[in-house]
Amino acid sequence: MNIDNNHLVIMAGGVGSRFWPMSTQEMPKQFIDVLGCGKSLLQLTVDRFQGVCPAENIWIVTSARYADIVKKQLPQISAERILLEPCRRNTAPCIAYVSWKIKKLNPKANIIVAPSDHIVLDIPEFIRVVTSSLKFTANSDAIVTLGMKATRPETGYGYIEADLSMSCPSNQEIYRVDAFKEKPDLETASRYVQRKNYYWNSGIFIWNVSTIVNALRVYQPGIAEVFERMTPYYFTEKEQEKVDELFPTCENISIDYAIMEKAEEIYVFPAYFGWSDLGTWGSLHENSQKDSHNNVCIGNHIKLHESRNCVIHTTQEKKVIIQGLDGYIVAENNDTLLVCRLTEEQRIKDFADE
Amino acid sequence: MNIDNNHLVIMAGGVGSRFWPMSTQEMPKQFIDVLGCGKSLLQLTVDRFQGVCPAENIWIVTSARYADIVKKQLPQISAERILLEPCRRNTAPCIAYVSWKIKKLNPKANIIVAPSDHIVLDIPEFIRVVTSSLKFTANSDAIVTLGMKATRPETGYGYIEADLSMSCPSNQEIYRVDAFKEKPDLETASRYVQRKNYYWNSGIFIWNVSTIVNALRVYQPGIAEVFERMTPYYFTEKEQEKVDELFPTCENISIDYAIMEKAEEIYVFPAYFGWSDLGTWGSLHENSQKDSHNNVCIGNHIKLHESRNCVIHTTQEKKVIIQGLDGYIVAENNDTLLVCRLTEEQRIKDFADE
Repeated sequence: MNIDNNHLVIMAGGVGSRFWPMSTQEMPKQFIDVLGCGKSLLQLTVDRFQGVCPAENIWIVTSARYADIVKKQLPQISAERILLEPCRRNTAPCIAYVSWKIKKLNPKANIIVAPSDHIVLDIPEFIRVVTSSLKFTANSDAIVTLGMKATRPETGYGYIEADLSMSCPSNQEIYRVDAFKEKPDLETASRYVQRKNYYWNSGIFIWNVSTIVNALRVYQPGIAEVFERMTPYYFTEKEQEKVDELFPTCENISIDYAIMEKAEEIYVFPAYFGWSDLGTWGSLHENSQKDSHNNVCIGNHIKLHESRNCVIHTTQEKKVIIQGLDGYIVAENNDTLLVCRLTEEQRIKDFADE
Repeated sequence: MNIDNNHLVIMAGGVGSRFWPMSTQEMPKQFIDVLGCGKSLLQLTVDRFQGVCPAENIWIVTSARYADIVKKQLPQISAERILLEPCRRNTAPCIAYVSWKIKKLNPKANIIVAPSDHIVLDIPEFIRVVTSSLKFTANSDAIVTLGMKATRPETGYGYIEADLSMSCPSNQEIYRVDAFKEKPDLETASRYVQRKNYYWNSGIFIWNVSTIVNALRVYQPGIAEVFERMTPYYFTEKEQEKVDELFPTCENISIDYAIMEKAEEIYVFPAYFGWSDLGTWGSLHENSQKDSHNNVCIGNHIKLHESRNCVIHTTQEKKVIIQGLDGYIVAENNDTLLVCRLTEEQRIKDFADE
């Protein structure tokens, strides 16, 4: 594997409405120091891939409205590598856009696509898995997904059903996918967890550029045509204008629906590196450092009294005193305050819309 | 009674630490729109006395640090009538200072002294009581206190024990005071409420200027001497300089300790005009308009779900969503957030000090 062919694509266009009001449309969670560690989730994501590809092969795809935030948070990434979507069209058009560009630059490119708002605890293992997957796709037409060993009946994730009867000859850790499963109800999720061949779909994909471009051509000819037509304009002054004109004409569809559930050569690399998509306050609570009363406090001046099982997230300057809460989210940014039971967090999206 | 002799003194130097963080040292509760009605407690206090005395006879005594706030909130009061204490010395030096000044202006002055952070619901009755008391003190050396009919065993107030056996000949509603009682414990307070001759001490006093000056001379000669010495400087350019020099030498003592518990001719006017000193979040809750779930919401953008018996107080701009709280204070200002059970509110002072 020639490491110079490796490209990293980070999708950073989400709006993170489930983490409102910490995450807002103006400043979604990938740009926030959710863990209170001094770096945003996006910055942590870029850091995590260090050594996987040359620095100039890192691509960020985001919404045009977040261009300034991305540039500020990732000054080491040149503006040329920051792709700006004029509107939200889910992951398939996003991946198509960057794939066609990379293909124009290097038809031998080998790509890893990752969300910008996940966390990984065991980074050496993560790097091992990613590198191993890239070696695999460098020499095959495989689409590889990273499947996370399911440790609980999580209803917030999609699942991947693997055929564990035989691993791939060229990589003994990689298996064929039998099916992708949408987010299940609790009963179904419990059944999945009991079986050994179900994995959480991490949304991290590895493929070479020919594979994904061809798959899009076959399964999403409409989207493929848009980015094929734009080929003369990539890396020119006219590119953004053309993107602004044509990107909105793409179908709004996720890469899972668009490709994963349709294509044949889909593989899964079952892995375990302490992953979370941080999709819920509950998962943030689970993945963060807790005090002796099981509270997670993110913010510089938070003081708790007789409180437990809470997640407190505030702006850095805010002084916060909490007394007598059990099992609550307290989230505050400059213009909004939310106090809500953790068990009711699925309603936060509605609260944000009110 | 010549109304031109009537003077109103409003004491506005408190720091309101029990209402932290709504009330802060920089902006204590008397300057805050605690009730969400568009006026601060100080502004409401001034309004409440309308017609009792000429506008130019209204005096505000406050801390030097609050001078700008007072001037902004009460533009109708001339700077000459705003007395600035260089440091906090409780109510006796405050009252002495303004009394000596008024005496220099008008030795026949008749004075009502009131805190700036109380509320009164029945203002016509309040005016009736105050006017009646002023008539009484215009022609006597009496010190009159307003005693509030005790409706519950409140431990946050001092009590006045009256001798109800005989009212004053010149005012049938006014009685001699037998004793002042400090804030009682709950058991004692319950005993007080059962008896008919115990009243809450409202901290509102009526007397003529000779009476209070003489009482201070007799019972607080140290304080009296300070303000006697300053007599040549009142209403001159040198006044503030002298105050800054001499005021700090006064003993730190309340008017209750300094005079009320010592003097002989003390009277009480038992009254009922929907009074509260708003000394606690509980009393704010009690005295404010509640929604159908017994919540008090002060702030423009507060939305509650499955919450009851709460007091929510925020800055005007803040959007607040509360879900699933019962019996809590949620108070927020620009740099601080407090969430605390109403039953634990006596600890807020400690929280503020942390």
